[in-house]
Amino acid sequence: MGMFDFLRPKKNTASIAKDRLRIIVAQERTSRGAPDYLPLLQRELLEVIRKYVSIDVDAVKVDLVKDGDHDVLDISVALPEERTAPA
Amino acid sequence: MGMFDFLRPKKNTASIAKDRLRIIVAQERTSRGAPDYLPLLQRELLEVIRKYVSIDVDAVKVDLVKDGDHDVLDISVALPEERTAPA
Repeated sequence: MGMFDFLRPKKNTASIAKDRLRIIVAQERTSRGAPDYLPLLQRELLEVIRKYVSIDVDAVKVDLVKDGDHDVLDISVALPEERTAPA
Repeated sequence: MGMFDFLRPKKNTASIAKDRLRIIVAQERTSRGAPDYLPLLQRELLEVIRKYVSIDVDAVKVDLVKDGDHDVLDISVALPEERTAPA
């Protein structure tokens, strides 16, 4: 355990945390240049996710961050509470 | 930095590490049940990525792991070295 600890909400917000779906796309920035396709990719990834999970576009939070030598696209989706377990 | 440290290769393999694209999809397992759509989602995500980056299907490594209360789909793609910077 622990490798994906960053996925977990902070302790003090756990009680109000909704279910979340996190999608993280990371690529090293090297000689091939920055992966400037990440913002475009984001929309298509969400379209795919939407086929499987009911998501509200307002509940989507997107960050495009530089973390050391990586460009990281971090998509966080708050899932609607009313959704029932899959059939 | 450090939040995405897990994306980096271990020090002793850094010298031979290829560029990698990592896609991580994580969802909490709660009352709605396990997100058993993750294996299906994997193929579609790769199809989207393939529009943007030239990838070799043999260079794709997929892990579906349980990390605490999360189901995590971890797709790691070794990018071909001959690829040049985008025009």
